[in-house]
Amino acid sequence: MGIADLDGNKLLDVYAQIASIPVGYNNPHLKEVAQSPEMITSLINRPALGNFPSADWSHILKTGILRAAPKGLDQVFTAMAGSDANETAYKAAFMYYRQLQRGGPEVEFTAEELESTMNNKGPGSPQLSILSFKSAFHGRLFGSLSTTRSKPIHKLDIPAFDWPQATFPQLKYPLEEHVQENAAEEKRCLEEVERLIKEFHNPVAAVMVEPIQSEGGDNHASPAFFQGLRDITKRNKVLFIVDEVQTGVGATGKFWAHDHWNLSSPPDMVTFSKKAQTAGYYFGNPALRPNKPYRQFNTWMGDPSRALIFRGIIEEVERLNLVENTRTTGDYLYAGLESLAQKYPEHFQNLRGKNQGTFIAWDTPKRDEFLVKAKTVGVNIGGSGAQAVRLRPMLVFQKHHADILLESLEKIVKLV
Amino acid sequence: MGIADLDGNKLLDVYAQIASIPVGYNNPHLKEVAQSPEMITSLINRPALGNFPSADWSHILKTGILRAAPKGLDQVFTAMAGSDANETAYKAAFMYYRQLQRGGPEVEFTAEELESTMNNKGPGSPQLSILSFKSAFHGRLFGSLSTTRSKPIHKLDIPAFDWPQATFPQLKYPLEEHVQENAAEEKRCLEEVERLIKEFHNPVAAVMVEPIQSEGGDNHASPAFFQGLRDITKRNKVLFIVDEVQTGVGATGKFWAHDHWNLSSPPDMVTFSKKAQTAGYYFGNPALRPNKPYRQFNTWMGDPSRALIFRGIIEEVERLNLVENTRTTGDYLYAGLESLAQKYPEHFQNLRGKNQGTFIAWDTPKRDEFLVKAKTVGVNIGGSGAQAVRLRPMLVFQKHHADILLESLEKIVKLV
Repeated sequence: MGIADLDGNKLLDVYAQIASIPVGYNNPHLKEVAQSPEMITSLINRPALGNFPSADWSHILKTGILRAAPKGLDQVFTAMAGSDANETAYKAAFMYYRQLQRGGPEVEFTAEELESTMNNKGPGSPQLSILSFKSAFHGRLFGSLSTTRSKPIHKLDIPAFDWPQATFPQLKYPLEEHVQENAAEEKRCLEEVERLIKEFHNPVAAVMVEPIQSEGGDNHASPAFFQGLRDITKRNKVLFIVDEVQTGVGATGKFWAHDHWNLSSPPDMVTFSKKAQTAGYYFGNPALRPNKPYRQFNTWMGDPSRALIFRGIIEEVERLNLVENTRTTGDYLYAGLESLAQKYPEHFQNLRGKNQGTFIAWDTPKRDEFLVKAKTVGVNIGGSGAQAVRLRPMLVFQKHHADILLESLEKIVKLV
Repeated sequence: MGIADLDGNKLLDVYAQIASIPVGYNNPHLKEVAQSPEMITSLINRPALGNFPSADWSHILKTGILRAAPKGLDQVFTAMAGSDANETAYKAAFMYYRQLQRGGPEVEFTAEELESTMNNKGPGSPQLSILSFKSAFHGRLFGSLSTTRSKPIHKLDIPAFDWPQATFPQLKYPLEEHVQENAAEEKRCLEEVERLIKEFHNPVAAVMVEPIQSEGGDNHASPAFFQGLRDITKRNKVLFIVDEVQTGVGATGKFWAHDHWNLSSPPDMVTFSKKAQTAGYYFGNPALRPNKPYRQFNTWMGDPSRALIFRGIIEEVERLNLVENTRTTGDYLYAGLESLAQKYPEHFQNLRGKNQGTFIAWDTPKRDEFLVKAKTVGVNIGGSGAQAVRLRPMLVFQKHHADILLESLEKIVKLV
């Protein structure tokens, strides 16, 4: 479960390998999956999935990754980890954008495109962009890092694309005391997004956003903000990509965090990794499939072993009703944190994540010391941004774990 | 072994999941590895290796990935697949280059760097470059794709960095009849590399090269050419990275293809994937480690399951002496192909890969038809570039398999 045994001492793990363990350590069902004949074959006979998918690959996808697909998105491109999941989604967006400009999938590339792309120049390699948000984190390879705006240390010395960033709403807490102010902030940010889409010198092919900025400090926005992004992107014929690498697979009390938004139409793509233990992007529109073979391709295109583990995770989530568990445990935990915040207001500032399952965070002045002291009382806990403590327990986290955590937090504030 | 049984019919597989299966399908030793307690743990308790490596991770590395390390390179950064292995090597090169410019690892970033990098602008996000070669293939994410110059279809519609490309030698065959001409061609290419390093407007931090251009058409160059690259990069204080994603792990009759070159000093970094079933880059110079934490980082930083498989592969390669097997079988196969080329000169042009194990290719006028017809006689075989047939059998490929292949090739040429 969420408690690892270290030489007889218990450690409560609410960081969970950077938010990537969903159904506990040593989960018995996953252990069965790991010993299954399918798993052994996938480990020792790893296929090049794009060319030689195994006979059961389609079945594995249908009963696994695709069974968890967000509403309206019934197709998937499989990848290895969050960064390449995001980058292949960006590639799909660029191909789609140019296809629209060109007039459809059947229009052939021009001689000039074919020649210029071999020199990394337009029109074949066009200067298009992905719009992301300040404080966003979308990965660390060259394309994804160009959309990451979390901390300088993630970006320094690495060449980046000239792509635009918009301001992510900086909400004030408690939310109920800042309703108008926060609405105005979100409106201002949406206007900035639309202005950048219309005016940025490298045309925007897609807007990329996290439901909760997870590395950047646990920054939340309202469903209305995200509906606004959906409207703006649609109006401007720009794709809307939701990065659910950290928020996906149950942690917010919905299977996908964007399920909280009740969008009028689904995102164009949703990327995933971490708790899925595999990675990729979901999409719905068939026009997002490349119009020719070998445009989106690589040797492995994911890993069936990890796809089998995700299937096992989905089965456990369903069997144990873990999304519901995370929702109710999260509500319970949030209430306990509210009490702590009343008692120790200086240590628990800007508590956030209400009704977001266990995806809860707060700011604390001596944050780094707080994280270190936590280990001394048996809690493994992480930070995000400059000041936040972020909770990322597993989906199997229950009320009695929450009680241990709340007691421990009180001990920690007395130590820092 | 290299022969897969399809409903009672045998298929000789000399493509091997795009050159990525080393020790045969259903290898019994790998099967044991796949069922080991270590494997089960690594599958169900996947660690975030950068923060929480398992207690045995260092042991797994020392007895596995690091045991196969190229001479002089005793450190490794682990990754997921070829593209991110190459891109993290590029990141290491950029950090190293800027660190030299800055005056050492202890020199702090300037306020201007910290600020500009958040806007994807210099000096924090500098306009540095990686020099690669025409027809090169180094992957398909944004940074690696900017160094890939194989085919337009790999690159079209995707924004790319303004990075330089030099000409890869276009040797004439048979080599022994074009000694002077080929030497002049290599000299010309080396001069172009040095000119680009000195003059290209985005300063070159590293030169990236494949020992044999594998997707781009099986283009070879001599050891002298690569020694020339080593000299030029050293002279110009630019890093020399060798992409062994396709050539590594035994296929050329050496464990690493660059072992054929007898370099005066090792490459600065060597990247690997495919037959390793995991990925990453090796390096020797401790200054290539980032000077601060979280500069080279991601959640998983590789996958211990796949590292265990690579360890099993190394054990099989040693136990069965498979590098030597590939060398002798390759020589035998090459001789057989020389006979075929004499008999059918129009079908076997520019035969190449002598003394390179089974890493053999030739050009043939109706190449795509050749590949299709091959399947009708029970052979799975791949192409590279526009005209080449490339052989990528597994390391367990033996003389009696070579005999079947040679017989089949003669059947195929009668069908196209």
